[in-house]
Amino acid sequence: MRVTVWGENVHERRDPSVAALYPGGMHETIAAAIREHLGEEAEVATATLEQPEHGLDAGALGRTDVLTWWGHAAHDQVEDAVVDRICDRVRAGMGLVALHSAHYSKVFRTLMGTTCALRWRNEGERELVWCVAPGHPVAEGLTDVFAIPRQEMYGEHFDVPPPEELVFISWFEGGEVFRSGCCFTRGRGRIFYFGPGDQEYPVYHQPEVRRVIANAVRWAAPSGPVPDAPPPARQSPRGWFERG
Amino acid sequence: MRVTVWGENVHERRDPSVAALYPGGMHETIAAAIREHLGEEAEVATATLEQPEHGLDAGALGRTDVLTWWGHAAHDQVEDAVVDRICDRVRAGMGLVALHSAHYSKVFRTLMGTTCALRWRNEGERELVWCVAPGHPVAEGLTDVFAIPRQEMYGEHFDVPPPEELVFISWFEGGEVFRSGCCFTRGRGRIFYFGPGDQEYPVYHQPEVRRVIANAVRWAAPSGPVPDAPPPARQSPRGWFERG
Amino acid sequence: MRVTVWGENVHERRDPSVAALYPGGMHETIAAAIREHLGEEAEVATATLEQPEHGLDAGALGRTDVLTWWGHAAHDQVEDAVVDRICDRVRAGMGLVALHSAHYSKVFRTLMGTTCALRWRNEGERELVWCVAPGHPVAEGLTDVFAIPRQEMYGEHFDVPPPEELVFISWFEGGEVFRSGCCFTRGRGRIFYFGPGDQEYPVYHQPEVRRVIANAVRWAAPSGPVPDAPPPARQSPRGWFERG
Amino acid sequence: MRVTVWGENVHERRDPSVAALYPGGMHETIAAAIREHLGEEAEVATATLEQPEHGLDAGALGRTDVLTWWGHAAHDQVEDAVVDRICDRVRAGMGLVALHSAHYSKVFRTLMGTTCALRWRNEGERELVWCVAPGHPVAEGLTDVFAIPRQEMYGEHFDVPPPEELVFISWFEGGEVFRSGCCFTRGRGRIFYFGPGDQEYPVYHQPEVRRVIANAVRWAAPSGPVPDAPPPARQSPRGWFERG
Repeated sequence: MRVTVWGENVHERRDPSVAALYPGGMHETIAAAIREHLGEEAEVATATLEQPEHGLDAGALGRTDVLTWWGHAAHDQVEDAVVDRICDRVRAGMGLVALHSAHYSKVFRTLMGTTCALRWRNEGERELVWCVAPGHPVAEGLTDVFAIPRQEMYGEHFDVPPPEELVFISWFEGGEVFRSGCCFTRGRGRIFYFGPGDQEYPVYHQPEVRRVIANAVRWAAPSGPVPDAPPPARQSPRGWFERG
Repeated sequence: MRVTVWGENVHERRDPSVAALYPGGMHETIAAAIREHLGEEAEVATATLEQPEHGLDAGALGRTDVLTWWGHAAHDQVEDAVVDRICDRVRAGMGLVALHSAHYSKVFRTLMGTTCALRWRNEGERELVWCVAPGHPVAEGLTDVFAIPRQEMYGEHFDVPPPEELVFISWFEGGEVFRSGCCFTRGRGRIFYFGPGDQEYPVYHQPEVRRVIANAVRWAAPSGPVPDAPPPARQSPRGWFERG
Repeated sequence: MRVTVWGENVHERRDPSVAALYPGGMHETIAAAIREHLGEEAEVATATLEQPEHGLDAGALGRTDVLTWWGHAAHDQVEDAVVDRICDRVRAGMGLVALHSAHYSKVFRTLMGTTCALRWRNEGERELVWCVAPGHPVAEGLTDVFAIPRQEMYGEHFDVPPPEELVFISWFEGGEVFRSGCCFTRGRGRIFYFGPGDQEYPVYHQPEVRRVIANAVRWAAPSGPVPDAPPPARQSPRGWFERG
Repeated sequence: MRVTVWGENVHERRDPSVAALYPGGMHETIAAAIREHLGEEAEVATATLEQPEHGLDAGALGRTDVLTWWGHAAHDQVEDAVVDRICDRVRAGMGLVALHSAHYSKVFRTLMGTTCALRWRNEGERELVWCVAPGHPVAEGLTDVFAIPRQEMYGEHFDVPPPEELVFISWFEGGEVFRSGCCFTRGRGRIFYFGPGDQEYPVYHQPEVRRVIANAVRWAAPSGPVPDAPPPARQSPRGWFERG
């Protein structure tokens, strides 16, 4: 399984507070979490916004089975051609793990078909992440609930299509709830959205969060090779399937 | 639309605190909520545990399009024959609105196929009910969130099958969340589970709660007459459907 | 309820065989089906591709609660600005009923997030439409199955997200099956896709098909007024919901 | 992963035609299919109706991670105590793969909450099994469609709750369709229902069918040890989760 961890890498280079939390960039921390849990099961690379084609040229993407995405400050700088390429590869079978503010990325919004708007407030509130699908592979190894001491609040209504499977619901100190672990499929590709993870808090260093991300990568992985494109519309003569 | 509001009617006759809140029994308060919102659209009757066959003999049930259910202290006293009759009528098309502690009724558990266990704590906590399906008929006329000042906590994991539609998620003061508005279908029948409503708090007098219950009754109503039984397994000769 | 029936109106003016089946255009036949079943419940207008802004300027769309869409030969001629306006209005709460080859329209594909590709063959095969959700409002008044004597085959795999509710599955003479009645929600809007209906066969004159379309329009209708736009992302101070 | 293949083993001992197809019993053929595909990943045992407690005493069931079930002629002879034990173990996390006529077993009906009735006709018709969820683990290694030359027809309406994931739809020569590959969860347990497989045809010798069964076993397997019972309702003091 080949995993590419994509990071916007803007806050980390601009904001000292973020650089202090994530000296190598958030993408390196996330990549390490996946390596830590999946070991030899996964080969993990990283790519960032500032690279040519954002590090996701056709070759790099063609070697990716699961893509994780974190972006926030520069969604608009992601080129439409790259967005189209990524969305098509998801439809063809690549897994996608969208993290936190990736809810508002071009890639996620295009695949959802909705605004993906939500309520937010950044006051370092406590978040409790409840598992509502205890037998689900993404919840493997976790207990019923875990706490994130300080987090940005993301709350309902979260404008995504009804998740095909809902794995986590978050509680926030200020009164909001949020569907923070959501499964979708688009074409042959599996998508997991995971709410926790703001750049201003050390969320991606937290063991439970790392575990969820690694579980999600494994869950989203395609079971075989991903074709170059999703199948086109096909005129099919009567009995086409009998002849092989 | 003919609605039967079923009430266990045990607490109301035994506990002065409950009788003070619901002098005519909780079922009368719930029936009034439905009449208030549905007016001439619905003909509302009540039935209670202590009546012969719990007020749900074949005739009474046969005249019911939507049944609402509230029970708590005496689930075991509901006769199995009546439970079977109710479940079969749901499968044939009758709507069911299961309220609060009805999660543990024989009827609801039989239809769900799961334990329907949950976490609970009765300390009069604040509950915030969030709508996560704003276009849903059961949420009609409501805003994004409403508060119930004091309530029993019901929390996850709530062991029901994944709701086919999730309409409400509740937040509780003590840290828990709960999928408090859940849609299911069983056969031709529609089932709505609604979390709010403990006997020790005036929840069924609250306007938003009354509105949700009335909306749920309308949503669960069958679109035509309910047959006496759900369709049996049928041996069907080739081309049966061509001959009418 | 204000319904706008949108028709591409290209085949009808170009192909004598289609004009013979639908002398006023397919949109008029579809509009008549809705009027026939919904009567005073619905006010039905039509709009077509060749009109300015395809008949769907902001005013016309703002007066539409449910939009039905039929297009085939000229998907590319639908202006992107109009597509955006329609998609946003669906997300805000307008219902959408996508008919047959509308699976490949810009509007439907944008809202689905997938390719919407399928298999097809136009040899006038028999289609049997089976109801797999007999209590569903869109199936109201129909029996378990109905036949369309001659139809274009649409077959799996149909690349849409898993339908939130699956109402119909079609059987085709040549061996294919198709999920031909699919419910989705996007934001506050409800979407129904219905497979039957090619321009070369008199499908929209068939009573069962007319009934399904009218049922779908009623099901997709919003329960209240549709706002001008779906809600944006909102920064929400702590306790915002307590103050109104 | 420990798999127990349960077989009713009545037809095989009573009907020479069935014994000829399945000399060791259908359960042995099914067990061999799982061993063939899962190899060392699974330890496969069998159990049959005529054994004490049907081969599923507490010890044997306690050593089972995934149970496959085939029954037809003797559903009523399965003891209720064993049915309860099985259902509870599914809710606790054991996987269940219900095959063909197992749709009418006590275990499956109890877990579904519906009648599980369907239409049927045994005339050796051709069945075409279409995959409608091409990225799903249960469909791994299969093409879009495969044919079963002669089969009993099972057709809609199949009275199960809407499948949480629909993987296969079958087409039958005589005109019917059937949701033949359905995923459900009950508690922590995963359930897959698979339609193909009548005792009078060599269906379980067919490579594609064998592959689906093995895939389903892998999909249904719990990710960790299965506890003795599903979690009970729990009174939870405020802050219980903070203290571990």
